[in-house]
Amino acid sequence: MSLPEPAASSDGGGAEFLTEIRQQPQALRALVEHERDYGRVATTARERGATTVRMVGHGSSDNATSYGVYAFGLLPRWTALRDSIALTVYYDAQLDMRGSTVIALSQSGRTPDVIDYLRRARKAGAYTVALTSDVSSDLAGEAEDVLPLAAGPERAVAASKTYLNQIAALGLFAAYAAGEGRAFAAGIRTTADLLDELLPALEPRVRTAALPFASVGRMFVVGRGIEFATAREIALKLLETCRVAAEPLTATALAHGPVAALDPLFPVWAIASEDATLPAVVEAAERVRAVGATLVASGDAADRLTGAAFVLPVPKPPVPLLSPLLSVVPGQLFAAALARARGLDPDHPVGLSKVTLAR
Amino acid sequence: MSLPEPAASSDGGGAEFLTEIRQQPQALRALVEHERDYGRVATTARERGATTVRMVGHGSSDNATSYGVYAFGLLPRWTALRDSIALTVYYDAQLDMRGSTVIALSQSGRTPDVIDYLRRARKAGAYTVALTSDVSSDLAGEAEDVLPLAAGPERAVAASKTYLNQIAALGLFAAYAAGEGRAFAAGIRTTADLLDELLPALEPRVRTAALPFASVGRMFVVGRGIEFATAREIALKLLETCRVAAEPLTATALAHGPVAALDPLFPVWAIASEDATLPAVVEAAERVRAVGATLVASGDAADRLTGAAFVLPVPKPPVPLLSPLLSVVPGQLFAAALARARGLDPDHPVGLSKVTLAR
Repeated sequence: MSLPEPAASSDGGGAEFLTEIRQQPQALRALVEHERDYGRVATTARERGATTVRMVGHGSSDNATSYGVYAFGLLPRWTALRDSIALTVYYDAQLDMRGSTVIALSQSGRTPDVIDYLRRARKAGAYTVALTSDVSSDLAGEAEDVLPLAAGPERAVAASKTYLNQIAALGLFAAYAAGEGRAFAAGIRTTADLLDELLPALEPRVRTAALPFASVGRMFVVGRGIEFATAREIALKLLETCRVAAEPLTATALAHGPVAALDPLFPVWAIASEDATLPAVVEAAERVRAVGATLVASGDAADRLTGAAFVLPVPKPPVPLLSPLLSVVPGQLFAAALARARGLDPDHPVGLSKVTLAR
Repeated sequence: MSLPEPAASSDGGGAEFLTEIRQQPQALRALVEHERDYGRVATTARERGATTVRMVGHGSSDNATSYGVYAFGLLPRWTALRDSIALTVYYDAQLDMRGSTVIALSQSGRTPDVIDYLRRARKAGAYTVALTSDVSSDLAGEAEDVLPLAAGPERAVAASKTYLNQIAALGLFAAYAAGEGRAFAAGIRTTADLLDELLPALEPRVRTAALPFASVGRMFVVGRGIEFATAREIALKLLETCRVAAEPLTATALAHGPVAALDPLFPVWAIASEDATLPAVVEAAERVRAVGATLVASGDAADRLTGAAFVLPVPKPPVPLLSPLLSVVPGQLFAAALARARGLDPDHPVGLSKVTLAR
């Protein structure tokens, strides 16, 4: 693909991170080419009655599982949970997992305790599925079925396109489980086109918004419902690439304590998408403004948040459940631009490596 | 009860918060007096086959549910989850909740979306239980059964004894579900005695440790497994009473990105308790020290974390599952002391009220 200017590599790090952000539309299209695999695995889960969905992963993979709770809850109406790895792997809790589908998310397929969890869950009766970029990884080898993430190689330590494809993959799985897979796949393709149109105009706009944050040390990122995953992912990008102490909060959690910490030097990023949770986000934004904190508004309903210092809207997707594929992108670009402004390299944050083997 | 000096009220706010921290042993004993209620409700859940436990709450109540995942997983081996309120209340997802027990946690019994969730869950077939201080509240009225929190009136906006009793209550419920309730109740009483012995010596020690943090703006609080709830609660205390941007992380999540943000002015509080997750916490503490960040170590295995600038150990409880009743207390006292050093009033943080009606 062609890279619009500026090529981030010319005067600093972050070229790979920015390139991979720009590759997201094509990564989404590559995922959808595997939709038959998603259909097959969803059918297996349904036929086995494995309708409690246990998702496990770390970092961006764990953030994506927050979306899975909603995708499975709203489409096939299955109960999906971010399962505790520690309960099974460290405490050896011996839960009965018949009736459960495990989705183990690991870009590399090498995360040790995710592999260990999946192995134990399989023995406990779960239907085990690996969602990974490496279909020949250890994780894939231990699972009964493998779903390809199909995002292509990701070289920047900070994830971007693998996160987006994890969101799309969980949605596609859930949609096929509900018998709506083909329409959802078409929706992903349309969203990829919207993203292609959005990126060239969004990049310079986000760069301008990011510069005033060069000396900010702490932020909250607020999202609710399907956008809580987005809040978590944007906060993680800010932490790992910009060294901003950024904490994700639901709109309601903000009011239950953390709002007391805000002041004009403690900005809040709020994700407003046009769905049933929007009133809660609008109310949270009002609280933020009432204490004088700077507000950044993104999402397809960003203009509904009054008093925002920066508004970074994205287009409406064909169905609301696809909005997280668009709403995270301003946050990714913001992290790339802010890291650059701070002289940090999001391709190689200090102390991190692409494959994390920590337990 | 008699108050050892200093009475915090003499020269600033926080008298009620400190008083309520000191009342925690008696609050725990008051809870255990209701153990027959816990036994009855646990029997009902088991007899109805309602062995998927859905817990909902906000703020400290939500933090306590992180403990419930382990208590129910380890004792009756039931799957317990922090359920999404948004999925049911905002999106009206219509999950089938037969086979589920709902535990709705609200100190006041007045949290609007928790009440709304419980009402809908009951219609969806769940066995609904309210865990609240006010057994005549709206929440209690909507539930099939009520479990008294029995912590007595809590006046400080920052929760302390109600959190501790929520932890004990979830453990007691889980223990009765596993047929081990009486032994667990005895364990809570023993832990209350340990806490009575601990408090007078711990208070001055924590005050000394807190002073050097007077200008700190951001922290991570690390705990894993049963102590992740503790990490969440200590982080919330630091946020709401001290205006420190404190984020809770599992030991493993720290390595998957956030560690890159650390530096010598970004301290980490780590909770080390003697259980199967201890090696992960030891490894996380080593990562923290490797980047030169200041480490505070608490928990009953605090001395296992090398290089800590401050060590705030607590006694070992009669069984490991009770350690969160002790390990959170240094964090509560630290928040009280740090708020005082900063001239803030934990009884009345700016922008908060005791009963949060935000959705």
